[in-house]
Amino acid sequence: MNLILLAPDDIEHDQLACVRDPRRLRHLKEVHRARVGDSMTLGIAGGSIGRGELLALDEHEARFALGAMDTLPPPPLPVHLVLALPRPRMLARSLEHATALGVKAITLLHSQRVEKSYWQSPELAPDKIQTHLVLGLEQARDTVMPTVSLAKGFRPFVEDRLPELLEARRGLLAHPEMAQACPRGLEEPVALLVGPEGGFIPFEVERLIEAGCEGIHLGPRILRVETAVTALLARLF
Amino acid sequence: MNLILLAPDDIEHDQLACVRDPRRLRHLKEVHRARVGDSMTLGIAGGSIGRGELLALDEHEARFALGAMDTLPPPPLPVHLVLALPRPRMLARSLEHATALGVKAITLLHSQRVEKSYWQSPELAPDKIQTHLVLGLEQARDTVMPTVSLAKGFRPFVEDRLPELLEARRGLLAHPEMAQACPRGLEEPVALLVGPEGGFIPFEVERLIEAGCEGIHLGPRILRVETAVTALLARLF
Repeated sequence: MNLILLAPDDIEHDQLACVRDPRRLRHLKEVHRARVGDSMTLGIAGGSIGRGELLALDEHEARFALGAMDTLPPPPLPVHLVLALPRPRMLARSLEHATALGVKAITLLHSQRVEKSYWQSPELAPDKIQTHLVLGLEQARDTVMPTVSLAKGFRPFVEDRLPELLEARRGLLAHPEMAQACPRGLEEPVALLVGPEGGFIPFEVERLIEAGCEGIHLGPRILRVETAVTALLARLF
Repeated sequence: MNLILLAPDDIEHDQLACVRDPRRLRHLKEVHRARVGDSMTLGIAGGSIGRGELLALDEHEARFALGAMDTLPPPPLPVHLVLALPRPRMLARSLEHATALGVKAITLLHSQRVEKSYWQSPELAPDKIQTHLVLGLEQARDTVMPTVSLAKGFRPFVEDRLPELLEARRGLLAHPEMAQACPRGLEEPVALLVGPEGGFIPFEVERLIEAGCEGIHLGPRILRVETAVTALLARLF
């Protein structure tokens, strides 16, 4: 927690904020070992960042006097990440990595090699997803929450949503054995598609290429989804 | 397990291998759902890769008829990774990510912000470290085990070991707020130094720069060690 992310409910008025949830209180006490008088980095959800002084800390709440909140959050990555739904634990970590790296739009996609049971996972509940996004923001000192959408059918996604995504973005399909190495240092907007463990099936690869995506690869090594997502984002931008 | 890594003990003769440890037997049954007659990717530790046919699978062993083992493992990254010792769970994941990405030399380093208790963790036992390296190799279809060394003193490392490392390598110190952005697409050998959570302290940064390292940064976001290691390796090479 390199930043304490203040939701609207946490802000009493423009000079005072209170944090009351057990997770953050425990983190302040046990990890930060915070003491009254400490100056800490705070951010307003969706807004700016500044410092606050800890006025009081007990079992029920931490109270902060807000200083000038005049620093902008770090710039986002110009990418819409389309990720074949990973198994639940991998999903949690992939959401945290992607959020920390600055991704602001994520679509979780069904594909042939995504186990149907993954769509029933409690990890897909909006509050669970939100938890991982908040952890990513707190890690990276960011305040702007990514949006996460679910695409439970591959064909409707390719026919109805992908064309719109590709209107203003370069479509890149990360898949082993594609001809082109992952490009480096892009500044243009990208839709980045990453398959499940085992990859998209050949039929899906064909549909995505037909829809306008370029196939790219990261070399001969087979990487876990969470490693691949971080490596792709770091190389692309 | 995208490759079954055969230790010398697993190889009966040049056409037959037996796997007997519970972890791999369980993985073959539960994840691969392997059946007699299946063809699978096998690799000889430190050597080449090929296919093998599953001849028998029971509670005690899996027997494989080895085909031609004539594929080379994927190329290594030209990097010696010097990582301030992370907390134990982060260490496990960082070792797996780095190994999967092709790192072949890792030094775990003490620094001011490394908690002393981390050096007593059971995760540092050689067989525990080996387990994570094997997981990384199995993931990436590689056969060449990285070497991991421990540097329990910062000063002896900087005075005695770093100069030798930098004789034939470009030293890069990844640290927030350094002037130079992380370079891209290097082909030369690199010694990459990554600090602990909270970073190297200013005194340590000064010593490393004096010793010949260039400071590099990954932008304004604060990343977890495991995310930073993957992002740095993906951007550098």
